[in-house]
Amino acid sequence: MTHPWPDDPTDVVAVRRDLHAHPELGFTEIRTAARVEAAVRALGWSVRSGRDVIDAAGLPGLPATSVLDHAAERARAEGVAPDTVARLAGGHTAVIADLDGNRPGRRVALRFDLDALPITEPDGADHRPGAGGFASRHPGVMHACGHDGHVAIGLALAAALSSGDFPGSVRLLFQPAEEGVRGAAPMVAAGACADVDVLLAVHLAFGLPSGLLAPAATELIATSKHLARFTGRQAHAAKAPEQGRNALLAAATAALNLHALPPFAGAVTRVNVGRLVAGVAPNVIAGEAELSYETRADTAGVAAELARRAEVVVRAAGDMYEAGVELTVTGRATAAVTDPAVATALTAAAEGLAEVRPTHPLGASDDASLLMDEVQRAGGLAGYAIVGSDTPGPPHSPLFDVDEAVLPVAVSWLERSIKEGRW
Amino acid sequence: MTHPWPDDPTDVVAVRRDLHAHPELGFTEIRTAARVEAAVRALGWSVRSGRDVIDAAGLPGLPATSVLDHAAERARAEGVAPDTVARLAGGHTAVIADLDGNRPGRRVALRFDLDALPITEPDGADHRPGAGGFASRHPGVMHACGHDGHVAIGLALAAALSSGDFPGSVRLLFQPAEEGVRGAAPMVAAGACADVDVLLAVHLAFGLPSGLLAPAATELIATSKHLARFTGRQAHAAKAPEQGRNALLAAATAALNLHALPPFAGAVTRVNVGRLVAGVAPNVIAGEAELSYETRADTAGVAAELARRAEVVVRAAGDMYEAGVELTVTGRATAAVTDPAVATALTAAAEGLAEVRPTHPLGASDDASLLMDEVQRAGGLAGYAIVGSDTPGPPHSPLFDVDEAVLPVAVSWLERSIKEGRW
Amino acid sequence: MTHPWPDDPTDVVAVRRDLHAHPELGFTEIRTAARVEAAVRALGWSVRSGRDVIDAAGLPGLPATSVLDHAAERARAEGVAPDTVARLAGGHTAVIADLDGNRPGRRVALRFDLDALPITEPDGADHRPGAGGFASRHPGVMHACGHDGHVAIGLALAAALSSGDFPGSVRLLFQPAEEGVRGAAPMVAAGACADVDVLLAVHLAFGLPSGLLAPAATELIATSKHLARFTGRQAHAAKAPEQGRNALLAAATAALNLHALPPFAGAVTRVNVGRLVAGVAPNVIAGEAELSYETRADTAGVAAELARRAEVVVRAAGDMYEAGVELTVTGRATAAVTDPAVATALTAAAEGLAEVRPTHPLGASDDASLLMDEVQRAGGLAGYAIVGSDTPGPPHSPLFDVDEAVLPVAVSWLERSIKEGRW
Amino acid sequence: MTHPWPDDPTDVVAVRRDLHAHPELGFTEIRTAARVEAAVRALGWSVRSGRDVIDAAGLPGLPATSVLDHAAERARAEGVAPDTVARLAGGHTAVIADLDGNRPGRRVALRFDLDALPITEPDGADHRPGAGGFASRHPGVMHACGHDGHVAIGLALAAALSSGDFPGSVRLLFQPAEEGVRGAAPMVAAGACADVDVLLAVHLAFGLPSGLLAPAATELIATSKHLARFTGRQAHAAKAPEQGRNALLAAATAALNLHALPPFAGAVTRVNVGRLVAGVAPNVIAGEAELSYETRADTAGVAAELARRAEVVVRAAGDMYEAGVELTVTGRATAAVTDPAVATALTAAAEGLAEVRPTHPLGASDDASLLMDEVQRAGGLAGYAIVGSDTPGPPHSPLFDVDEAVLPVAVSWLERSIKEGRW
Repeated sequence: MTHPWPDDPTDVVAVRRDLHAHPELGFTEIRTAARVEAAVRALGWSVRSGRDVIDAAGLPGLPATSVLDHAAERARAEGVAPDTVARLAGGHTAVIADLDGNRPGRRVALRFDLDALPITEPDGADHRPGAGGFASRHPGVMHACGHDGHVAIGLALAAALSSGDFPGSVRLLFQPAEEGVRGAAPMVAAGACADVDVLLAVHLAFGLPSGLLAPAATELIATSKHLARFTGRQAHAAKAPEQGRNALLAAATAALNLHALPPFAGAVTRVNVGRLVAGVAPNVIAGEAELSYETRADTAGVAAELARRAEVVVRAAGDMYEAGVELTVTGRATAAVTDPAVATALTAAAEGLAEVRPTHPLGASDDASLLMDEVQRAGGLAGYAIVGSDTPGPPHSPLFDVDEAVLPVAVSWLERSIKEGRW
Repeated sequence: MTHPWPDDPTDVVAVRRDLHAHPELGFTEIRTAARVEAAVRALGWSVRSGRDVIDAAGLPGLPATSVLDHAAERARAEGVAPDTVARLAGGHTAVIADLDGNRPGRRVALRFDLDALPITEPDGADHRPGAGGFASRHPGVMHACGHDGHVAIGLALAAALSSGDFPGSVRLLFQPAEEGVRGAAPMVAAGACADVDVLLAVHLAFGLPSGLLAPAATELIATSKHLARFTGRQAHAAKAPEQGRNALLAAATAALNLHALPPFAGAVTRVNVGRLVAGVAPNVIAGEAELSYETRADTAGVAAELARRAEVVVRAAGDMYEAGVELTVTGRATAAVTDPAVATALTAAAEGLAEVRPTHPLGASDDASLLMDEVQRAGGLAGYAIVGSDTPGPPHSPLFDVDEAVLPVAVSWLERSIKEGRW
Repeated sequence: MTHPWPDDPTDVVAVRRDLHAHPELGFTEIRTAARVEAAVRALGWSVRSGRDVIDAAGLPGLPATSVLDHAAERARAEGVAPDTVARLAGGHTAVIADLDGNRPGRRVALRFDLDALPITEPDGADHRPGAGGFASRHPGVMHACGHDGHVAIGLALAAALSSGDFPGSVRLLFQPAEEGVRGAAPMVAAGACADVDVLLAVHLAFGLPSGLLAPAATELIATSKHLARFTGRQAHAAKAPEQGRNALLAAATAALNLHALPPFAGAVTRVNVGRLVAGVAPNVIAGEAELSYETRADTAGVAAELARRAEVVVRAAGDMYEAGVELTVTGRATAAVTDPAVATALTAAAEGLAEVRPTHPLGASDDASLLMDEVQRAGGLAGYAIVGSDTPGPPHSPLFDVDEAVLPVAVSWLERSIKEGRW
Repeated sequence: MTHPWPDDPTDVVAVRRDLHAHPELGFTEIRTAARVEAAVRALGWSVRSGRDVIDAAGLPGLPATSVLDHAAERARAEGVAPDTVARLAGGHTAVIADLDGNRPGRRVALRFDLDALPITEPDGADHRPGAGGFASRHPGVMHACGHDGHVAIGLALAAALSSGDFPGSVRLLFQPAEEGVRGAAPMVAAGACADVDVLLAVHLAFGLPSGLLAPAATELIATSKHLARFTGRQAHAAKAPEQGRNALLAAATAALNLHALPPFAGAVTRVNVGRLVAGVAPNVIAGEAELSYETRADTAGVAAELARRAEVVVRAAGDMYEAGVELTVTGRATAAVTDPAVATALTAAAEGLAEVRPTHPLGASDDASLLMDEVQRAGGLAGYAIVGSDTPGPPHSPLFDVDEAVLPVAVSWLERSIKEGRW
């Protein structure tokens, strides 16, 4: 049942395909983190992982215990050593690797995200991973946002820098649970950004085609993820419907009216109710319902107002059905901006590698923004770069796939940037 | 982990408590059916079970394979012999027991339903099963409709009749999945009513207090249970919301508008969307949604029209979001009426046992109606009787419990009816 | 433009057709009341009308001033004398006529309602009033509930009794605005039931066919009519949508969720949002919305609970959109029951006239119930009788029409009842 | 009742206040058009109006006949000569004035819009028009978008140019019904843009503060306005609710789900249901409903797709309630862009007058875009300019007011542009 780990971390395609075939949802990336940890340790990096670099206990965005347990079981079944599983289980799937260069310079940290999405991957021949035999072996889970490529880039970069021939020092942040913007905050809280001078995040694709590099993404928008629990009252749907308090209808009403929240003039905003689970059987008035939604905006002010109005909608929907409402923020990212100095340095490093597109709008969120914000608040620099990649389908769709040809380009770009150290 | 089965089937309270502590959802009643089978066989009845008496394969109302498998595993863990599990697994949890009396007479069949509900039972001291240590040991499952009592009555009746001192013959139909009105139809299809002259169903409580017996329930209403699957298109909620086709909102719109279907003048109708599951994560436009609903009416004509209009709503909701809609009927019951001859016989048998309430309105559905209808169409008689029982909460609520003092009364009533054979 | 009033009040068909052609909405029945007043005065009855018998000022259910003014103008244009218009205008369209009999007996009051409905009547040849040339001449208004017949019956009865050859005394209550159950309460407040021993209301059709008389209607259900006003905030729909507070969506959400209120087991209930007016133009976020709804139930307790839950829905819908909500009760009727003594007397009087159906379920509301309740509370008797009439379409539909052949039967029935005086 | 017309068209403040006090909705601007016509004729311009310059008959966006008639009546009551009213009534409220300059040059047309909004203006002292005694005298109608200022600017410009001391020729297009984007299309159809070389539209405020001029507005977005009529079936809400087909709920469902249409990545879109009128009374299932909505997008492609999806929602809502749906486009504007040559000429003309803001995003629609598009397609030039004005509230809100100090600046800017003739 175990899959042989590629011997050579510089073989980005092999590594990426192994990860692609074994996608893990946020906070359950035990196999992925274990492999990362083993690889960077073998390359001579100083490695910390698990509870030392993330405090996952009690995080609102953590999956249910049964899900965490199942992930641990699967990791063991897939060959991860039991003590490693124990160290990483329960959502502690972060790894931090540090290496000092052979000359003075700044400390540069790079963020690579580990997790996949709850999407079922097609395994037919018209989908490259299917045709190539590396489609997801984990039912209902898929790397549909390129994080498999990110990790492969990170490991190849670790190999490329392992000689220590660079200024300053480098820290690789392998972060769990970027999806749902849940993993960065507890890593910040555990000190991931301590003494970091420059924070870089890199993402594949995002609408930028192969052959292009964008050193400074724009429209990296603020978001918060929310879980709303409605508690009504169950009742027999035929014998006593009036004794029920219909949590399902409360949630349905909330969903519709959340989507009916207005756009904001002059701002990019998004509201999405992405998940709704309510009730147990057709003949029972649903007493419980749960709804997961997100709000996004490209400025912090609008983001706050939008989240406030969403809460008004959710609470009123509960009131309408005389159901209790419990609201939790399960994830959060902010609106981050790349520092011009970082953009300049990355532009210089791209010369000869690929065409540079000075900016590229994301219209999306990433909790790397929290790492960026943390470093910038402490006086450091930060940047969010895009490595162009053609994709057969949009991100977060079952048709997504990355262009593996761009992976070595990404590695070279980052390697050069660090070796040049122009920030 | 196994619970000792009471030695004595005439101890209705002990049997009922054992069943109450081990509730099983429809089509997963493996432990229950196994115990029933063993008990009636030990009493000398001729027993058939599993595929011989029900054809569950391909039933639309069957739970998912993983649920069925989990039930089989649990039954084994609770001490059911593996070959018995194999015989009953996959939804084949029906048992039929036959016994001939020692003198001529008609063949009387009695229906007892086996299944419990997806409700979490409280285990506190203010809930009798909690105080008495026989609250549900199966998380999220509860006998909240009295079927545990029904089975206990059935077994005690089997014991009371085991001497054969009664006219004609008796058939005990232990039926799975009454909840969701799913189990009777495949038993009818497998011949459960063959050669039956009189079909009796009996139900506890239903609003009738302890001390009363009602030989002829009214308002046994027609119902159908429906599963609607919406297939839209997943998309990244921020990067490409317009590429999504929002199955969650289609389902929410369907839910609200199904509940907004009008009442019918002069009829009792019910519509309930009892379950809605949609989407995967807050940042993904939900591509899939599933909705379970029921329609009910006290006449077959109104029931058909109501089901038609519900379908119109569901299909239009799919169209509204350009999502595909797949609709399946997962359960069905009809509107049944007790024959006066049966009511008369039961009334006579109740003399001295308890006060008789000639009729009692249910305002609910039971697929015993399909068994009744089958027998009546073939020229036989049928009846639906209520044994009054005080209950601390309404049926299908976590506060429900039956008054165990009425169980022996029910057994005596049925025993006398059969022995008198006045139909 | 004026239509000649039939000379002979005993010609019930001619009178009914004249009224049918000139329908007037509740509180605007100026022409109708004027004709009634003139007719009964000419027959020698003692007549009071206008402010003496109803206090309409400030009634929440009163139409807008512009509507009242327009009605007055139309009445003048249709030949009603200006001083009569002045006396009846502003909603004071009630008439009370009293006559003493020539021998001792009880005082019997009969209620006849004057108003029509906001429905557009077809004028084609396949609709009898259209074919007969007496379809509504008032666009958008139609006698679609038989009140034209009621008034015709009342006038013919006034003629039949004008000799005074009956026991006790008779009072005819010509009531405005039965639709919306608005007119009875202010007549009660003005003393309409003072010294009344027996209160009778009579209604045509209601599902009872021609040839049948029902002395005691059942299911005369309690109702309240509500007006909800949402006050949000207007804004430019493109330039500043986020500054709006969308009253239209608040009202739409309220409407859907009011219709999704559950049925009550064991009760007949109704909820209807019958009117919604919101907003001004497509490019303006609607700042104002208004919604008219009713709740009904066949017991006062359920009616109160249903009205409470409706209010919860409406207020929560306002909260959801941060809109203010103003709620007014515009009409009210209660659940009334015919006294057996009245039923007996009416049954006796029907002998030889038509077949008697002891009871007939209405499943509807009438504020005659408030008059009945007032008399019954003071120790008197009351009854609500139905005169069967075939109708080509249901009441409150454009296809409705009464069977004119039953009108003389109704007159005879009431005349006999009064002359026999058996209460 | 008539208000003295200011003698001097160059007194922009007086003219604007007169217009502000007498706002008229789209296609009913009879008084406004009559005043404009008289003023420009008196200044020596060649004037055409009414049917010669607009064909309003049969326009889907035309108000109801009763509204048009009422407007004509009010105009007469306010002193407009009956023959003038007759010429302009029925929606023919357009005026075109032409004047040739005294030297060769291009033909420049300027669009000024005449109409007001269905908003009730506050008349308190804290609202400048209220304090100044020139708040709206037409209940429910208000100049809340600055068109009163536009007309005043147009007349002052007519005066400033009346000497003929300018190159080429000038055409002033006084257009009705800009709100709802209804008036430009029929003027184009009637030849308003014939032989026009340069088309200019100018608008006050739009978020640009006093003291700034923007020669080239951006984000002038495409829009269409729609009227949806739902035809269900009326029925008595208590006696026969199941016979109804609820048009009100169909419209409410459409409204909610139209607002739930997704944003489009990379585009600015808007959807608004601004008006909903349904049903007649609380006790009648609503058989008819009407809903006015708009869709907008900043590119024609997205606009078309958005309008398509809105139609899908509306039709499905009708289907859901088995109601017929009739959809009409009542207004339309396209996405227009200012030609650089026009921007350059206007920038030059602004020198010394006010600070220039090269571009200003509108995020709104104006059917001047249809005039611009017509001229540009024929090879001419077009521009949409903004004259900054502080406003106490947003456009289309009751708090809106323009800064009258900017009106003379606007006149000078346009006068200079024309006299310089740099296009």
